[in-house]
Amino acid sequence: MSTTRLAVQAKAIELGKLAVRATTAAGSGHPTTALSLAHLVTVLMYRVMRWDPTQPAAPGSDRLVLSEGHAVPIIYAACADLGVTITPGGLARPMTLDDLMSLRDIHSPIDGHPNPVLGFPFFDAATGSLGQGLSVSAGLGGAARLDGIDKAIYCIIGDGESREGQIWEAMDFIADHALTNVVAIFNCNTLGQSDFVAAPEDWQHLKRKAEAFSWTAVAIDGHDPDAIEDTLRRHKELGAGKPLCICARTVKGWGVPSLGGMGHHGTPVPKTELEAVLAQLDLRAQELGVAHLDPAVMKDAFRIAPPLSAPEPPRAREPIGFAEAVRNEPKVAEAVAKNKVLSPRRAYGLALKALGAANPAVVALDADVKNSTYALDFALAFPDRYFEARIAEQNMVSAAAGLWAGRKLPFVSTFGRFLERACDQIEMALIGGANLKLDGSHVGVTLASDGPSQMALADVAFMRTFTHVRDHRGNPALTVLTPSDARSAYALVLAMAAFSSACYVRTVRGDLPILYDEGEQFPFGGHKVLRRAAAGTQRIVMAACGYMVHSCLKAADALSKQHRVEATVVDAYSLPLDSAPILALAGPGTTIVTVEDNYVGGLGSELAEAAASAGDEAPRVQALCVHNIPKSGRTPEDVLSYVHLSVEEIVAVAVKAAR
Amino acid sequence: MSTTRLAVQAKAIELGKLAVRATTAAGSGHPTTALSLAHLVTVLMYRVMRWDPTQPAAPGSDRLVLSEGHAVPIIYAACADLGVTITPGGLARPMTLDDLMSLRDIHSPIDGHPNPVLGFPFFDAATGSLGQGLSVSAGLGGAARLDGIDKAIYCIIGDGESREGQIWEAMDFIADHALTNVVAIFNCNTLGQSDFVAAPEDWQHLKRKAEAFSWTAVAIDGHDPDAIEDTLRRHKELGAGKPLCICARTVKGWGVPSLGGMGHHGTPVPKTELEAVLAQLDLRAQELGVAHLDPAVMKDAFRIAPPLSAPEPPRAREPIGFAEAVRNEPKVAEAVAKNKVLSPRRAYGLALKALGAANPAVVALDADVKNSTYALDFALAFPDRYFEARIAEQNMVSAAAGLWAGRKLPFVSTFGRFLERACDQIEMALIGGANLKLDGSHVGVTLASDGPSQMALADVAFMRTFTHVRDHRGNPALTVLTPSDARSAYALVLAMAAFSSACYVRTVRGDLPILYDEGEQFPFGGHKVLRRAAAGTQRIVMAACGYMVHSCLKAADALSKQHRVEATVVDAYSLPLDSAPILALAGPGTTIVTVEDNYVGGLGSELAEAAASAGDEAPRVQALCVHNIPKSGRTPEDVLSYVHLSVEEIVAVAVKAAR
Repeated sequence: MSTTRLAVQAKAIELGKLAVRATTAAGSGHPTTALSLAHLVTVLMYRVMRWDPTQPAAPGSDRLVLSEGHAVPIIYAACADLGVTITPGGLARPMTLDDLMSLRDIHSPIDGHPNPVLGFPFFDAATGSLGQGLSVSAGLGGAARLDGIDKAIYCIIGDGESREGQIWEAMDFIADHALTNVVAIFNCNTLGQSDFVAAPEDWQHLKRKAEAFSWTAVAIDGHDPDAIEDTLRRHKELGAGKPLCICARTVKGWGVPSLGGMGHHGTPVPKTELEAVLAQLDLRAQELGVAHLDPAVMKDAFRIAPPLSAPEPPRAREPIGFAEAVRNEPKVAEAVAKNKVLSPRRAYGLALKALGAANPAVVALDADVKNSTYALDFALAFPDRYFEARIAEQNMVSAAAGLWAGRKLPFVSTFGRFLERACDQIEMALIGGANLKLDGSHVGVTLASDGPSQMALADVAFMRTFTHVRDHRGNPALTVLTPSDARSAYALVLAMAAFSSACYVRTVRGDLPILYDEGEQFPFGGHKVLRRAAAGTQRIVMAACGYMVHSCLKAADALSKQHRVEATVVDAYSLPLDSAPILALAGPGTTIVTVEDNYVGGLGSELAEAAASAGDEAPRVQALCVHNIPKSGRTPEDVLSYVHLSVEEIVAVAVKAAR
Repeated sequence: MSTTRLAVQAKAIELGKLAVRATTAAGSGHPTTALSLAHLVTVLMYRVMRWDPTQPAAPGSDRLVLSEGHAVPIIYAACADLGVTITPGGLARPMTLDDLMSLRDIHSPIDGHPNPVLGFPFFDAATGSLGQGLSVSAGLGGAARLDGIDKAIYCIIGDGESREGQIWEAMDFIADHALTNVVAIFNCNTLGQSDFVAAPEDWQHLKRKAEAFSWTAVAIDGHDPDAIEDTLRRHKELGAGKPLCICARTVKGWGVPSLGGMGHHGTPVPKTELEAVLAQLDLRAQELGVAHLDPAVMKDAFRIAPPLSAPEPPRAREPIGFAEAVRNEPKVAEAVAKNKVLSPRRAYGLALKALGAANPAVVALDADVKNSTYALDFALAFPDRYFEARIAEQNMVSAAAGLWAGRKLPFVSTFGRFLERACDQIEMALIGGANLKLDGSHVGVTLASDGPSQMALADVAFMRTFTHVRDHRGNPALTVLTPSDARSAYALVLAMAAFSSACYVRTVRGDLPILYDEGEQFPFGGHKVLRRAAAGTQRIVMAACGYMVHSCLKAADALSKQHRVEATVVDAYSLPLDSAPILALAGPGTTIVTVEDNYVGGLGSELAEAAASAGDEAPRVQALCVHNIPKSGRTPEDVLSYVHLSVEEIVAVAVKAAR
């Protein structure tokens, strides 16, 4: 047996013992999964990866993405052993064994599952909700290729985890984009949480699946240091032009017979049994002849190669404004000049292209609807920076998180309805601090003819919840924007790019009259008063966003002409919203009518919550939104009537509410 | 050429023309996709499927699930031609050509994408958001097997659509459960919306993928009537013990050269070009020698075989109560007797098992966490009715919708956090009227040690939005329940089963004191006053749900002892909530403090919206919830402090708010 092989065995056992100790100290966690990865992680982190423990996030370093996040104690053990830099509270220092033993403590950056923003920059993204790491790796791989950095991205995935369809979306995406810098490693330990892993997820099937998904696949003994190292080092050669998938046969609870078999998932070793379990690992070390290895042998075996050099991030300049962007597109210019209308989604395309020209870090992804969202503008102008994600929204969002970790600024577009496919992925991206720019097109019922399967109606409620959560930057974890015209859409997309935390813009499909002048500013949290009620008459304040701003303007005309009610109309394009000024527009004892063509949980809730907490000093809030499941209609007006949001119905409500 | 073959060609062209006409009449839709399915749909609906056009939902009939819902005009055309029973407004009558031409009209049951509840019972589920139909088919297949009905479920999937990972989750699930009654048909027309279908989704790759996923796969010419019929009729023989996947090579815009190639997705033929396009199809009929086929030949070729007989649905009896369920489990009984505590999730398991014993239609699905959610109780007691879905939540939810369409009552459990993986699938199930019973376990921050990747915090905002949407039954499309103790959890799970629309129960992980007596009733929309403030002192009303009810009870004790503030504590376990009585408890000029350990958008929003619309007569609502992204902590209390929801912080807020 080579001394290197002996050293890896000794280190794997040492790390395994630390992982067991740490989970026992925490009183929870997954020691048996960690043990199944002891050799793979040792070979990766001590021998194969080119990186620098003092700069674990260096852009030129090889990356390790732990998709099966619950196995993280084995990586924490390695980082404690290596003194990898951690940044709790923003202060950089080497990780210690004490840090390791603080696993899952409320004051510790060593969280239950990987999360870079808590002070563990070794990781690129938060994982823990399964099936997302390979997509993150794809994004990292895409970014590395754009930057010309020849680094490798190693992704460890559980065999049971491979049941998540997103894994296969990522396999397709990586093959499509020929991201041979990504190496997928399936940890085939055959045991899930509640049962043995199903037959379709055994290593033989996984190998066949990977091959059918256009990868090269090999199976190895995941506890054989030589096989691991040889396969990892030769991954490009073995892949032969395709990305390489390694099916590593492993043992859950490796080295500890008493932890073998079912019934030991997510269960720490009780304190009373800890010494006996560690003794089994010591015994294993004796059997392997590595119980008392010369420290010099260990030191000699573990000389970590440094990161590659990485280029400086490119500088961005100011993007062109709306007027210039329109001028550059003769057909758009003609339509705007002629009818003074343009769809917000068309403005998204113009803005995205302008951002692409101004900032080389901007990349875009779309799910085979780029001709509808107008991400096509960007795809045509910057094909190298456009990643067609096909009809696979989950992978698209997690890949964007990976691109962000690779120093890119990713814009992600599809129908708003289909971003609901990726709610979990969006939440994981926000947990990990990814600065995503999401575009949901075709929002609301005015999509009309395609029916409710294509209409974003529940997106607002889900996305708004994150607007009231602070991220690690102190920003709203998400800012939600629903522009009412093309010029505000353009300005807001530019503002999204300039903001340091995640944003979601909702773009209406149809042409809408342009409401704003060139140069108008749209600060996040703000609103615009588009019409002010004349004094001395019956009055009402209406607040709306997107398409419904135009319905409210029409309603205001009708109110004035037919009912002698004067309306103030507010375009409340932003969530979170600075509500106080809008409440003050109406004043105590009056009623604000909010109008939005989505389900409950958006603008109406935002103002209602503000009013309810203010109490007597605030106006009533009467929220109009969608309260029945829509259906197809041939015109937006048909469907607006079906959901009781026609101009006539808005007028009727406003008349009753006016004072 | 056989007369049957000629008849199929003629009918395919006839249906194709109708589909083109219908989309032109609608002014939107997908005629070219429809044309690619003309022969497959003709052979299925006119020759192979055993069904009855006058009873399109008969439980003994073969089923057709159109996963690529946008192709639906070709099926509508067939249904109009056959006079299939439709039920607009609840009244049954045969579908006419006029109905077909009303496609996508607001008054028409012929919606843009398949949806049974609008009056089109031929379909079992709403489709249109891609990638879900094969999972629905799996549920239908599972239900048929349970009922001993030897019917077939044919599922048509787009080639581009196969990029959705959920398709591969379904492939695994169907193979795992040996559902050889499901036949997957990939419509390989090579053209997506914005680009050619990617190489990994061509028919050769799809065939290899299906084989790697343990299916038998064959490739056929999807416009060859004989090949289609032979393959469909012999699907069991060809499958040879495995489910059969048919990769049908088709032509998008078949029969109409001018609609070939890219650029014709989702684009109806303009009225001005309609006759020219129809003429191309007529020309195709002439070339094939079927332009003037003898009607007798057609009639002779199309004798549809009747449905199989299906057993009567079994009768349900009353399930046992909590006390008896506890007595039946000695370990649980001991813990309850000794400490008067039990976790709500444990009660879910007890209730699910009791329901299984009482109602043979109850089935359960879980995603490899059945030992955590306690669906294990059911899995052990009724293994035939338990469907282990493994780590694939999207397929699990859509398969449940299929089981419901197959006359079962499906209970779906996993961590509440991971149900967020299936937001889109949940919404599609609700659109299609599926009466799902969802259990989200381990909700809120008190899960503590595993960290935010496992905590359901945004689930409430998403799910609540549907509580304010009426479904076709006139019920809330979803009822959300967060019980605060095991007895209410048990009662609410039983009530879910008895309710005719979808429900979502959120079960806390930890043991909680039992608050209620045996026999207590928990009506949906209701609440419980657990403690009433004494008169004549400073007072406050606190409303909470789940774990936080206990925090509020502790806070009330502290308020009384340390601050001379008397608190009323309300358990508001239900959304939608009948808010008025709770607002009345506090009264005008006072403040209600709501407490929940999730992000914004739940109970606090519910009461705030009610208070804001009531105005002066209502109390203020101050909503406490989670406003920062949590992290791991070793105890629930640690994490509650981290998110500013400790008992001390609740007390501090209540003291300020009290009057």
